[in-house]
Amino acid sequence: MNKKNLTLGIDIGGTNTVLGLVGIDGEYISGSSLPTKGERDVNKFIARLVKSINTLFLPYANTHNLAGIGIAAPSVNYINGTIESPSNLQWGNVNFVSLMKEHFNIPVAIINDANAAALGEFYYGHAKGLKTFIEITLGTGVGAGIFVDGNLLHGEKGLAGELGHIIVEKDGRICNCGRSGCLETYISATGIKRTVFELMAKDNEPGKFADLTFNDLTGEMISEFAKSGDSIAIKAFRYTGNILGGAMANLAAYFSPQMIVLFGGLVNAGDLLLEPARRSFEEKLLNIHKGRIPVVISKLNNATAGILGASSLVLRELQKNSLKSVQYLAV
Amino acid sequence: MNKKNLTLGIDIGGTNTVLGLVGIDGEYISGSSLPTKGERDVNKFIARLVKSINTLFLPYANTHNLAGIGIAAPSVNYINGTIESPSNLQWGNVNFVSLMKEHFNIPVAIINDANAAALGEFYYGHAKGLKTFIEITLGTGVGAGIFVDGNLLHGEKGLAGELGHIIVEKDGRICNCGRSGCLETYISATGIKRTVFELMAKDNEPGKFADLTFNDLTGEMISEFAKSGDSIAIKAFRYTGNILGGAMANLAAYFSPQMIVLFGGLVNAGDLLLEPARRSFEEKLLNIHKGRIPVVISKLNNATAGILGASSLVLRELQKNSLKSVQYLAV
Repeated sequence: MNKKNLTLGIDIGGTNTVLGLVGIDGEYISGSSLPTKGERDVNKFIARLVKSINTLFLPYANTHNLAGIGIAAPSVNYINGTIESPSNLQWGNVNFVSLMKEHFNIPVAIINDANAAALGEFYYGHAKGLKTFIEITLGTGVGAGIFVDGNLLHGEKGLAGELGHIIVEKDGRICNCGRSGCLETYISATGIKRTVFELMAKDNEPGKFADLTFNDLTGEMISEFAKSGDSIAIKAFRYTGNILGGAMANLAAYFSPQMIVLFGGLVNAGDLLLEPARRSFEEKLLNIHKGRIPVVISKLNNATAGILGASSLVLRELQKNSLKSVQYLAV
Repeated sequence: MNKKNLTLGIDIGGTNTVLGLVGIDGEYISGSSLPTKGERDVNKFIARLVKSINTLFLPYANTHNLAGIGIAAPSVNYINGTIESPSNLQWGNVNFVSLMKEHFNIPVAIINDANAAALGEFYYGHAKGLKTFIEITLGTGVGAGIFVDGNLLHGEKGLAGELGHIIVEKDGRICNCGRSGCLETYISATGIKRTVFELMAKDNEPGKFADLTFNDLTGEMISEFAKSGDSIAIKAFRYTGNILGGAMANLAAYFSPQMIVLFGGLVNAGDLLLEPARRSFEEKLLNIHKGRIPVVISKLNNATAGILGASSLVLRELQKNSLKSVQYLAV
C-alpha cells in the first residue's frame, strides 16, 4: 500500500509548545500541546517533545509517512538552524535542527515564529497572492515577517525583521535585550501592561487595576476593562495604537508594502487597538502612501497559525516533489 | 564597420545635472554638466539636456552606437518611470522616461538617485560580490539604496528605501514632506546646518558661525570649522553622527546586512562624522550584530557615482546581450 504523506508543524512558545499534523493539501488534521518551560537542559525538553510527536502520529503510522518537520520558535537563526539565547527560554544557544535530527531521519527546518506567522498568512490568509507585505506579531514580544518580492526577508545572517528591537524612544523603557527604548517594550502584551502601570502612576485613578498585581494582569484583562469603559485601559490602547501606527508608517517608508497584517494575542482587542493604530498610521504616512496600504487583522487562528506556517516550510517542497519522502524513524 | 556600443548615464541633481558616456566594460569615458534649475516646464529642461547629450556624443557618433540611457533622479518611481513631485525640483509629476523616448529611440531607464549610488557601489565599489548591504546617501536630503539577496529593494510601488523620511523624533523638526521629525531634517547637509543653528541658540558661543547666514553656510564649512577646533562645529558632527548611528542600528535590525556604506557630500567630513556614527552604531546595535557589520565610506567619486550607477541599469542588459542595440536617433 502506498502511504500518504503528512507533515508536522511545531510552534515553540515561551509558555507552551503546540504541534499539529498537516496534510499534503495544507489541511490541519490533529494537534496536541505540552508545556515549554521546566528544564534548563534542552535535551529533556526534546525528549518530552519526541514523546508528544510519537503519540500524535501513532494513529496515522500504518497509513501515512511523516515526510518532514517544520518548527517555529523565538530568536531563530534560519540559516544555521539554531535558536539563539531567546529571552523567554532558558536553553542558551542550541542547534535545534541537529538535535531533532538525532531523533528523526526526515527533513527538519526551523524558522522564527514571526516569520512562520507570515508564511501562514501567505499560504492560508489575507496575504495570498501578495508579493510585498509585512506581518507584525504582537505577543509576549514583538516580531515581524517581511515578504519582499514574494520571498521572506532573512538578511545575510538570517536575523532580519527584528521589529521588536527597533529603538523608538531615546532613553526609553529597559528591554530584555539589554538596551532601552525598543519597540516591544511598548506595543507587546508586556508593553501594554507597563503602559497601564505608567498611567496608574500618572493619573491617580487606578480604577479596575487597583487590586491587580503586575504578574496577574494580562492583555485580555486590559482589553475587557477597556470594553467596559475603564479610562486607564482605554488610554493604554490609544497609547499602544499610536506607537504601533508610527512603527507601521516607518515600515511603509522602508518597504513600500501592499498590506500590513497584525497577528498575535494583543490583536484580539480588535478595534480598541486597530482604530488608534490605523489613525496614527495614516497620519504619519508619507503622502505617496496615504490611503493606499490596508492594515488588517490576521485571518489565521492564533492557536494553529504557527503550526501551519512552520509546516509550510516542508509542505511546499513536498508539493513541488522536490522533497523525497522517507520512512518515519522515531527513536 | 561594426560600431561599438556606449551607454549614457545621467544624474539629475537639485542644482546641477551631470552626464557621462560609459563604455561596454563599465569604463567612464567622457562627461559634461548643465544646470538643472531654471524652468518650471520640464520640456524646456529636456530640450537643454538633449542638446548636451548630442554635443557629448558627437565625437563618437561615427564609431559608436548609443545603446541605452540610464537616469538617476530624486523621488523616482522606478516601476512607472516617473519623477514624483520632488521637493528640490519644480516640475510636479512627470513621466521622464516617456519624455526622453520622444527624443531617443533606444532603451531608457530611470532610478532613484540613492539606488543609483548603491548600484554603482555594487558594480564598482566596496559592495562588489555582496548580497545584502545598504548604501546611505547623505546629501541635500537623505536616501538609501537597499540590496537584499543581490537585488535592489523597490517595494510594491517602487518607493522602498525612503530612509530620509523615517520619523526619528516625536514633534521633531519640520520636514519638506509636510511631516515632522524625519531623519533627513537631522543628518543631511541641510540637517547639520539646522543643528549648527540650534547649537548657536543654545550655547551662546557662536564662534566662527557668528558672521554667516543660513544660506551661505555649507556642510563643507562646518567640516572645515570642526577641523580647526570650533566647538559648535565639532558638537554638530557628534550630534549628527549619533543620530546616524541610531538609524543604522535600526537598519541592521530590519535587514541584517553585511555592510553599510556611506555616500554623499556630507561624508567628505570623514572621521568627524564616521567616528561618532560608528560609536553610536555599535552602542545601539543588537548584541547579535555587534562588531559584525562594517560601516565604510563609499569608494566612488561623488561626481561620477550617479552616472556609473544609472548607466549600469542598461549596461548590464547589454553585457548579457539581452538588450538589442539600435541606431542612435537624436531628434
